[in-house]
Amino acid sequence: MYNFRTDLANERRDIYQKVNGKEGEIDGIESSREDINENLKIERVKITNENGEKAIGKPIGTYVTIDIKNLKIARDEEIEKAADILSQELKKILENHIDKQGEILVVGLGNIYVTPDSLGPKVINEIDVTRHIINYLPQYVEEGTRMVSAIAPGVLGTTGIETVEILKGIVDNIHPKLVIVVDALASRSIERISSTIQISDTGIVPGAGVGNTRSEISIKTLNIPVVGLGIPTVVETAVLVNDSLDLFISKLQEEAKSNDYLNKLKEEDNYEEIKEALVPKDYNLIVTPKEIDELIENMKDIVALGINKSL
Amino acid sequence: MYNFRTDLANERRDIYQKVNGKEGEIDGIESSREDINENLKIERVKITNENGEKAIGKPIGTYVTIDIKNLKIARDEEIEKAADILSQELKKILENHIDKQGEILVVGLGNIYVTPDSLGPKVINEIDVTRHIINYLPQYVEEGTRMVSAIAPGVLGTTGIETVEILKGIVDNIHPKLVIVVDALASRSIERISSTIQISDTGIVPGAGVGNTRSEISIKTLNIPVVGLGIPTVVETAVLVNDSLDLFISKLQEEAKSNDYLNKLKEEDNYEEIKEALVPKDYNLIVTPKEIDELIENMKDIVALGINKSL
Amino acid sequence: MYNFRTDLANERRDIYQKVNGKEGEIDGIESSREDINENLKIERVKITNENGEKAIGKPIGTYVTIDIKNLKIARDEEIEKAADILSQELKKILENHIDKQGEILVVGLGNIYVTPDSLGPKVINEIDVTRHIINYLPQYVEEGTRMVSAIAPGVLGTTGIETVEILKGIVDNIHPKLVIVVDALASRSIERISSTIQISDTGIVPGAGVGNTRSEISIKTLNIPVVGLGIPTVVETAVLVNDSLDLFISKLQEEAKSNDYLNKLKEEDNYEEIKEALVPKDYNLIVTPKEIDELIENMKDIVALGINKSL
Amino acid sequence: MYNFRTDLANERRDIYQKVNGKEGEIDGIESSREDINENLKIERVKITNENGEKAIGKPIGTYVTIDIKNLKIARDEEIEKAADILSQELKKILENHIDKQGEILVVGLGNIYVTPDSLGPKVINEIDVTRHIINYLPQYVEEGTRMVSAIAPGVLGTTGIETVEILKGIVDNIHPKLVIVVDALASRSIERISSTIQISDTGIVPGAGVGNTRSEISIKTLNIPVVGLGIPTVVETAVLVNDSLDLFISKLQEEAKSNDYLNKLKEEDNYEEIKEALVPKDYNLIVTPKEIDELIENMKDIVALGINKSL
Repeated sequence: MYNFRTDLANERRDIYQKVNGKEGEIDGIESSREDINENLKIERVKITNENGEKAIGKPIGTYVTIDIKNLKIARDEEIEKAADILSQELKKILENHIDKQGEILVVGLGNIYVTPDSLGPKVINEIDVTRHIINYLPQYVEEGTRMVSAIAPGVLGTTGIETVEILKGIVDNIHPKLVIVVDALASRSIERISSTIQISDTGIVPGAGVGNTRSEISIKTLNIPVVGLGIPTVVETAVLVNDSLDLFISKLQEEAKSNDYLNKLKEEDNYEEIKEALVPKDYNLIVTPKEIDELIENMKDIVALGINKSL
Repeated sequence: MYNFRTDLANERRDIYQKVNGKEGEIDGIESSREDINENLKIERVKITNENGEKAIGKPIGTYVTIDIKNLKIARDEEIEKAADILSQELKKILENHIDKQGEILVVGLGNIYVTPDSLGPKVINEIDVTRHIINYLPQYVEEGTRMVSAIAPGVLGTTGIETVEILKGIVDNIHPKLVIVVDALASRSIERISSTIQISDTGIVPGAGVGNTRSEISIKTLNIPVVGLGIPTVVETAVLVNDSLDLFISKLQEEAKSNDYLNKLKEEDNYEEIKEALVPKDYNLIVTPKEIDELIENMKDIVALGINKSL
Repeated sequence: MYNFRTDLANERRDIYQKVNGKEGEIDGIESSREDINENLKIERVKITNENGEKAIGKPIGTYVTIDIKNLKIARDEEIEKAADILSQELKKILENHIDKQGEILVVGLGNIYVTPDSLGPKVINEIDVTRHIINYLPQYVEEGTRMVSAIAPGVLGTTGIETVEILKGIVDNIHPKLVIVVDALASRSIERISSTIQISDTGIVPGAGVGNTRSEISIKTLNIPVVGLGIPTVVETAVLVNDSLDLFISKLQEEAKSNDYLNKLKEEDNYEEIKEALVPKDYNLIVTPKEIDELIENMKDIVALGINKSL
Repeated sequence: MYNFRTDLANERRDIYQKVNGKEGEIDGIESSREDINENLKIERVKITNENGEKAIGKPIGTYVTIDIKNLKIARDEEIEKAADILSQELKKILENHIDKQGEILVVGLGNIYVTPDSLGPKVINEIDVTRHIINYLPQYVEEGTRMVSAIAPGVLGTTGIETVEILKGIVDNIHPKLVIVVDALASRSIERISSTIQISDTGIVPGAGVGNTRSEISIKTLNIPVVGLGIPTVVETAVLVNDSLDLFISKLQEEAKSNDYLNKLKEEDNYEEIKEALVPKDYNLIVTPKEIDELIENMKDIVALGINKSL
């Protein structure tokens, strides 16, 4: 399979179309787009069969991408508006998998001590949990309130335990009906850093965004539906260098018409030496906006508010 | 039972002796003391039978208290020295319950977002975990290395899940042989705030330090031995007010010889109105040193280093 | 002068009235009260002559106190409402001292690394400064925009320099027309911790809230008007112990009718031994709500928003 | 002048030599190198005349670069060793400009709320200031102790005031004899991020490291000697993209022998379109290691310790 270097379904579809020179719809992939206002856009990608799966390397399911422009300077109203949109889209997906009172566990992946990776744990701190109130002080909640619990399990490097092992233990012990997982994703686009949310009903692979593949968190491993909320917070430096070179070669080719040598270079995706020289292997280098701390705060507000409103 | 308002076994023993006018040893309680240097003291309390249990309301087991003076201005050598002492004492207790290669899970209780409650999660971030390396990259560790994993499960108010439920799920899934729990305790003594470590082999009751009793974390609930590392980080304001009044009444009584009215007041522990006036009920008020942020950092270094050295 | 142990003019007035058995107005002190809603109250105290000054130990000037209830659980609307009130009151005071375009320097006192002392520096981070834009990119601001700059100078223990020396240097060099100082205050009332804002046009004495008197920041030292925004964030532990004992003696006296010995104790304010036993001298102990981190965040939003709206 | 895109004198010298095809010494630039151990290297560059100044665009003066390898996993001893080296080098430079008791002001530039920019303010928090003790409690310090004060003035975007204006005001008011400025620098080399310290006696230009040139902080603007401690904490993304393309063109040229078109591209430094496509202009994008938070903590310890030891 092509190395997409992005976890966003719509970016993968675009790359697939470009690489394969196809303009229209792909068999097994349905897309639609909605512009709420100039700062808010929704894109829905549905993978409906195995052909779609194979094409972009994502399992059958629904992927909704919400793009928020100018988040860095967003005011309270805009954050609330974005949270509303997230809440609506999340609700639609939840309704397909669980009833109104079905217990939900919200999981925030990532490392609170590493800024671009801290979104998940920060969201968990803001979730309106009800499970303990319903259990111990039922008189304080309206009848019919959904049980909500939340956990930030930490990362493998700090815990020594696969996230899915931790979650399996908890799910088997407290028996929620569905899990929502908030995680950092990789994107190819610098403009999407902490400005895009992808909702999907196919679960998540932790650490996919930053290079290390971990066992997936999905209905396969937890035996209950898993809705993923993924937010790109970094672009890998290797991707940026790669894209520079691709773009440059295309440019050279345009001007020189055709060029076997360059063509071969590009196909083989093998300017490895150059990348090695620029991006030393034992570094885990990322590209972020200088204002990442602030962007993460704003995005945390949107995601926490959006989840709370939908539950 | 008398309301000791402290989780430290040696403080309880002192109070028991004072309240009951007993000077010497209590049946079922053995004590000894060791002064390492002028800033470091160790006190060992062993509860050996039911009478000891009843006397101070702590289960049969070993309780080692390490007092560190002047931690606020401690230099690197002093922190290292304190960590060495902690490591030695911890090792002795571990050896009674587990062999050298037995897998250990370290648990840090508390809320990372509330300064005096953040010690546990901060320690977890510094533990040298080995479980994932032994599992995935065994060539990078010496043979015979002990498997260590670590988790900060969060607090009930944030997760909606009892800590013991989370830990039960994880323990049942990854099967460690022993759990070490790091937690904040209550103390009666302002001088002990973030300056004392109590090691015990009887587990821990989370939240005991701050008013809300939760299900205990011990061999009874987890089915494996639980070693508790408790560090006082706050004194409850109500305790301070209570102690002021007790001390004041004693003073009055000394001078007035005897006084039925005052005697009654003290016995009944019921100057409730006064406490209500000073410490409003819906506030969760604590007394801390102004430098608590710094004290927590230094204590975190000692505890993390002490645990790492002993494992 | 009586040791009020509070920086709030209205608390001092209440204590003065109680201690002196006076019910009505004091010569030289005018008061009025306004209840905005059940969570928001404004109290205005004006000291108009030397007698008022002497009575409560505060210089001639205007002191407006805004009390915000239930800030811990305040929602965005309530925070905005409180900011509106602050903005209105601040505007009224500013208008007495400076015209609409007069340049203002906002100063945030306190130590960013000590939670209850971090309010000032945190507010500074949110102030909409315009001075550099007007200087370098005037095309980006509307004509007539007021020049605003902001600084968090740190605390004496960290800088080695009196705050007023730092500010004097800056004021002499950049020539603002007025200074707004945001600082932590001491209060006697636990309910006011991070829930009250006092605005005054008489400047501020940094560190007054926590025991160490520093040179004042006022028109006397800076030669331009200084508006102080003071927020109680702690109660000193010694104050709490003192109040416990006072209340307790009053209680005893009520029941025992009169008591020369107790009377004497109270007047002399000298249960020093007891206080020493409870509050060791070399500790800088404070009483705070356990949720102080969160309260400081909410108060920071109100103060920053309130200032930004008024400028 | 050539756009070096680095503030390190030794990197500039290397680039100058490469661009100009010169191998040996440059007139006006003296260099020497010392390897302390495999993890610690010192390089000294002295610019001695105008020719040297012009060659690498740095004023006449001394530039000492200390490189620390593997800082991410450095233990306490290694951090102490690096601090010792820094202290020795700093002392040598200070001795050329000030006597043993001359008062020093340490300045930490940068924004505490932006991780890679927070080094300066964090160092300030750890400096052993003595000025206030000598002024108010001289009995507590040995006679002959040097007066040290410290300040973190914030950044233009937050204060609205040029850093040099703030410092000028303070220097004119408290009269230190020398200023040490700690700041983030730009480097071309990813391996130097938070792993290199450049000491120079020529002052500093704040913000040089991240794109916006501000008025310099030097003897010219403050009238007293200024020693700069610069630490690279980021590489600008544009630099990385640029370097990718340069390296790639060199590679193509090697294989194709000569190529006028490529030569021209490289000389003109004008693949602007490509850079625009990859690095949108209104983003302030940086490349950092994922572990930047931890690297900054370790570097802060070295710099604070190194300064404290040398004063």
